[in-house]
Amino acid sequence: MNGAESLLQTLINNGVEACFTNPGTSEMHMVAAIGKTTGMRSVLALFEGVCTGAADGYGRMADKPACTLLHLGPGLSNGSANLHNARKANSPVLNLIGDHATYHKQYDAPLTSDIITLAEPVSHWVHSVATAEDLPKDAAQAVYEASHQPGRVSTLIVPADCAWNESVDPHPDLGRPETPEADPASIRRAAEMLTNGKPTVLLMSHLALSAEGVALADRIAQKTGARVFCDTFTKRLARGAGRAQLERLGYFAEQATEQIKDIEQLIMVGTKAPVGFFAYPGKPSKFYPEEAALHTLADVGEDAEKALAAVADEVGATDAPRLVELATPGLGKGELSPKSIGQAVSTLLPENAVVVDEGATAGGPTSGMCAVAQPHDWLSLTGGSIGYGLPCAVGVAVACPDRKVVCVHGDGGAMYTIQALWTMARENLDVTVVILSNRKYQILQVELARVGAQTMNKKTLDMLDLTNPDLSFVAMGRGMGVESSLATTAEEFNAQFESAMNQRGPRLIEAELAHTVAPGPSNII
Amino acid sequence: MNGAESLLQTLINNGVEACFTNPGTSEMHMVAAIGKTTGMRSVLALFEGVCTGAADGYGRMADKPACTLLHLGPGLSNGSANLHNARKANSPVLNLIGDHATYHKQYDAPLTSDIITLAEPVSHWVHSVATAEDLPKDAAQAVYEASHQPGRVSTLIVPADCAWNESVDPHPDLGRPETPEADPASIRRAAEMLTNGKPTVLLMSHLALSAEGVALADRIAQKTGARVFCDTFTKRLARGAGRAQLERLGYFAEQATEQIKDIEQLIMVGTKAPVGFFAYPGKPSKFYPEEAALHTLADVGEDAEKALAAVADEVGATDAPRLVELATPGLGKGELSPKSIGQAVSTLLPENAVVVDEGATAGGPTSGMCAVAQPHDWLSLTGGSIGYGLPCAVGVAVACPDRKVVCVHGDGGAMYTIQALWTMARENLDVTVVILSNRKYQILQVELARVGAQTMNKKTLDMLDLTNPDLSFVAMGRGMGVESSLATTAEEFNAQFESAMNQRGPRLIEAELAHTVAPGPSNII
Repeated sequence: MNGAESLLQTLINNGVEACFTNPGTSEMHMVAAIGKTTGMRSVLALFEGVCTGAADGYGRMADKPACTLLHLGPGLSNGSANLHNARKANSPVLNLIGDHATYHKQYDAPLTSDIITLAEPVSHWVHSVATAEDLPKDAAQAVYEASHQPGRVSTLIVPADCAWNESVDPHPDLGRPETPEADPASIRRAAEMLTNGKPTVLLMSHLALSAEGVALADRIAQKTGARVFCDTFTKRLARGAGRAQLERLGYFAEQATEQIKDIEQLIMVGTKAPVGFFAYPGKPSKFYPEEAALHTLADVGEDAEKALAAVADEVGATDAPRLVELATPGLGKGELSPKSIGQAVSTLLPENAVVVDEGATAGGPTSGMCAVAQPHDWLSLTGGSIGYGLPCAVGVAVACPDRKVVCVHGDGGAMYTIQALWTMARENLDVTVVILSNRKYQILQVELARVGAQTMNKKTLDMLDLTNPDLSFVAMGRGMGVESSLATTAEEFNAQFESAMNQRGPRLIEAELAHTVAPGPSNII
Repeated sequence: MNGAESLLQTLINNGVEACFTNPGTSEMHMVAAIGKTTGMRSVLALFEGVCTGAADGYGRMADKPACTLLHLGPGLSNGSANLHNARKANSPVLNLIGDHATYHKQYDAPLTSDIITLAEPVSHWVHSVATAEDLPKDAAQAVYEASHQPGRVSTLIVPADCAWNESVDPHPDLGRPETPEADPASIRRAAEMLTNGKPTVLLMSHLALSAEGVALADRIAQKTGARVFCDTFTKRLARGAGRAQLERLGYFAEQATEQIKDIEQLIMVGTKAPVGFFAYPGKPSKFYPEEAALHTLADVGEDAEKALAAVADEVGATDAPRLVELATPGLGKGELSPKSIGQAVSTLLPENAVVVDEGATAGGPTSGMCAVAQPHDWLSLTGGSIGYGLPCAVGVAVACPDRKVVCVHGDGGAMYTIQALWTMARENLDVTVVILSNRKYQILQVELARVGAQTMNKKTLDMLDLTNPDLSFVAMGRGMGVESSLATTAEEFNAQFESAMNQRGPRLIEAELAHTVAPGPSNII
């Protein structure tokens, strides 16, 4: 059994079932080993950013890692932006990066580069395999490292000779790391703060955002008067009818600081203190009042749900959570707008769907209106690197073959990893892509003014504008084998989206918003 | 004058005229500053790999750097694979990477990452600006660093507050670094080797590959009996009728080792000793006989042309170089094949064209047949990271607005940076793209067998195959505003390519090769 074969069986032994791959010559033995197995699904992507974004989406939903298979330093680099997002999401992801044979690296062949250094900024754990014999145990360790709750990005560099040389038996299952519990003192402190009568916010993310976690927070809120927020961008949030609700912290500093300006205490659950996505001239980086008391109930890696349960006990929060009632807005008419799209998505979203949101400026109404739709999971852009949405939707659909996936995407962002459409077609994934085609980097036109750089002449605006020529996502979608249609009115969009919800397989709807003015991101979820 | 404005004027003072940009919020002051200038052309790309590949192509032809403008770590990462290619090409490239305001980095906002670490493996020089006052002198230094012959990748990280705070006057032109001459002892040693009667090869790259450099090498060859080769993949090579010729070292080890198996001496001019692109089980990494005497006449950074002239003098190589005669093969008929495409490109290529080659397996005949076409420059993939071709063609066309650019591209490689088509359309660049659509990663199917991983079952082949569904580059090209057509016979291709050569502006021809068997890369140039 060569290294690649023992590696594959080790991964399967340790629960890895899917590989998002864009291989090259140095990965050929791993490709052959995948080809021989039945326990590992292989999903080909035409660009590495699709592989890594898909692994992020898969990890968010499956709660265990898929692997990527990438080609040396440049393959890793092409996947690096979506690994950045995965790292910020704390998604479980295992990267397998092929490398030159150990003895070949000294020659500085064209594809030689410093892979470890490229991997470190986007990984929680990086290791380069030394011999074929080491490969199985290193692979088991890599899965284990990725499996720390809520998830980590683990990168294993596999020199070609470690894959092709004779190896040892596959490594058995190493199990999963235990999730540490929050310190009892931290739970008591949170309970004291929540009962001292001062205005308090619970800010939640990661493991706190399960349906149960949000329900516990709502029970605490009812008992103590605290308000419950989640981070602006979250890995996965259980929302919709029949679930408890919480507020989302706004994207813009002026929204977020207004939302929590009166608080005296801020308790973080599975997250850290909120700061600006960017700095702006003359504006503070921190969103919370300077004099507010901060307390971390549970770190990102701690069992936030259990900590919330303990706090609920401690404060005597015995009332049942207040549950959202289905209150979909009904379909819009006439002009196609971010609002009418939000109406349609909210109204027609099937139960148990997964929404992957990279809607950016035009996506706010959809996000807001879906809070009262059928119960669903909502995934958002955690690391700020645009182009996560289409790949993430690929991974979600592979992880959840029985759930409808809806990907709401800005046009600018969709172009970064547009190749994901082909993988949707090849794998016949049940994804409906809605492209919010406003033909500009709308967020940048807003930001240009906000940072005080107000010269909006044509040359400047041309750098923030997607016209001349207009993009046709319908043509590109068809060019990659996805059934695609253009909607220019609310009625057209409603009909197309409804038909997409009633069929299985990939669909793309380009929603032409060129003539509407999009609002900023909503702070309602 | 704020930092961004002083930066821009500094770049202009130092000869930088073009910026390939995909900006975000942290770059808004730089965008505004570019918008206010007339001395800096701004070219928007929809993906950062297009920006960096374009800067590579621009640098190869203009022999001075353009700048990129990229958005923090993820923007750099998306451009990193083509920076890898640019670094291996020794192209002059200046990256401007926006970063969070200096005081904001401590908060670990979503887009925060270790940009310096990400930049180092793909840059010769990296610097992060500390204050707005430092920015102009740092920018001048960055241009200087990029301008070392034959070129370097220089990365300047610009925190947002360094761009928006008040700065000092723009820095004047720092001039260009001098190109060191080869050591006289090295010239004497080369002359001795060339006249001692032993079988000798001159292996050339970089500065040696100008029309004059190749002519000098041919004069030396005539006098001494040495053979002249260039590296398999070269940054820029002056070829075609009226110029001297040389051989290209083959891609596959079995080709290259056969080509130079009888040599006793190897003299490198602007390059290093040749090794395998990859290692293969049981095959040597080095292409040359173990006992061959190696000598470097001129390092990559030394004046190779002058060194060749000195050697020519020393050995008394006074004969005029042998010049290639125009010997285009004429147009093919019937089945569309790599050969018939080579015939058409060679026969119809206009004088002074620039060919950007990422034709991979199906591109060999075109490369070979163009050696006897009208004089042109030939650019190839130096770092092995596929997806350089379309972006490189963008940069070449910006640098050389009066020259026809032909980009011959494999279908698999073209998908990595397909977004480049939109920039071609927006800038109305005179680029004809030929997609060699064989619907597979043909090179990998060859390599799979060569590395000894012979399990060619359906699951394995699916990872190396671009069918199910077929890609339509015609649809994608039209979706990005480029006039696009499909050729399925030699006659259709001939007519479409001829019409493209006779018009200006972007054109895409998808050459359907699905049913032909492509040969390996040619070792003839």
